[in-house]
Amino acid sequence: MTTHDVKTVFNEGMSFTAHINGHEIRMDTSTDDGGQDSGPSPKRLMLASLAGCTGIDIVSILNKMKVPFSDLNIIVHAALSNEHPKIYNMVKIRYKIKVAETDKPKMIKAVNLSTEKYCGVFAMFSAFAKMDTEIDYI
Amino acid sequence: MTTHDVKTVFNEGMSFTAHINGHEIRMDTSTDDGGQDSGPSPKRLMLASLAGCTGIDIVSILNKMKVPFSDLNIIVHAALSNEHPKIYNMVKIRYKIKVAETDKPKMIKAVNLSTEKYCGVFAMFSAFAKMDTEIDYI
Repeated sequence: MTTHDVKTVFNEGMSFTAHINGHEIRMDTSTDDGGQDSGPSPKRLMLASLAGCTGIDIVSILNKMKVPFSDLNIIVHAALSNEHPKIYNMVKIRYKIKVAETDKPKMIKAVNLSTEKYCGVFAMFSAFAKMDTEIDYI
Repeated sequence: MTTHDVKTVFNEGMSFTAHINGHEIRMDTSTDDGGQDSGPSPKRLMLASLAGCTGIDIVSILNKMKVPFSDLNIIVHAALSNEHPKIYNMVKIRYKIKVAETDKPKMIKAVNLSTEKYCGVFAMFSAFAKMDTEIDYI
C-alpha cells in the first residue's frame, strides 16, 4: 500500500506552511478573512492539483506518442456551492495547446486517457463535482 | 454563485506553474517519473489543501472562543488505491496542539465544527475517502 504524508505547520495569523516531499508551500487567507494573503487559499490549491495531475498526464502521453506541442496551459473554472461546507460542485477544465492539425485526434485521446484512466485527482473530483473538459487549439 | 479560476502553465519537462489568486505554485514529478522534482507532486497538494482548510478553521474558531494555543501542526496521512486512477481512499488527520487542560473540550469542538460544518475540502474528501481525525496534545 502506498501512503503519502504531508506535515503542515501553523505560522501566524491564518498562515500555514505545508511540507510536501521536500518542498514548502505557504497558504493563507485573504485580508477580508483575517489573513495576510501571503499564499494561495487552501481550497484553490485543489484546482492547481487537478490541473497539474491531468497536465502531467497530457505531457507524458503526448511525449510517448511523439506529438510535438507548445503553449500548453490549463484553466480550471470551478463553481462553489452556496451553503457550508462549500464544495466545488461544477468544474470545467480548458486545455489550451498548439499542435499540428493532424495531431488533434491524438490530443483528444490524451485528454480521454487522463480523465478516464490515469488522473487520480480527476477521479476524486468526479466523486463530488460535475466534470467537463474542453480543448482550445491555439 | 462564487467561482474560482486557476490558470496552470506548462514550463518544461513535467513541470507546471499554477497561478492562484496572485500566487505562483510550481509542481513537478520525481526524477523516477521523468520530472526534475522542482516542486511538489500535484496529488500531494490535495493533502496540503485539506490541512490548510481545516487548520484555518481551527485557528479561526479557537480565536473566536479566546482559547490560547501554540505549536499547532497538522499531519495528513493518506493511503492510495492500488489501481489506476489512483485515489486517496483512507485519510487520517492528526492535529498536534498545545492548549490548557481546561481548553481541551474547546479544541475538540473546533475540530468537530471544522470537519462537520465548515471545511469544504474535508467535505469533498469525504466523497471518496474514509476520513479519520485525532488530536495529539503536546
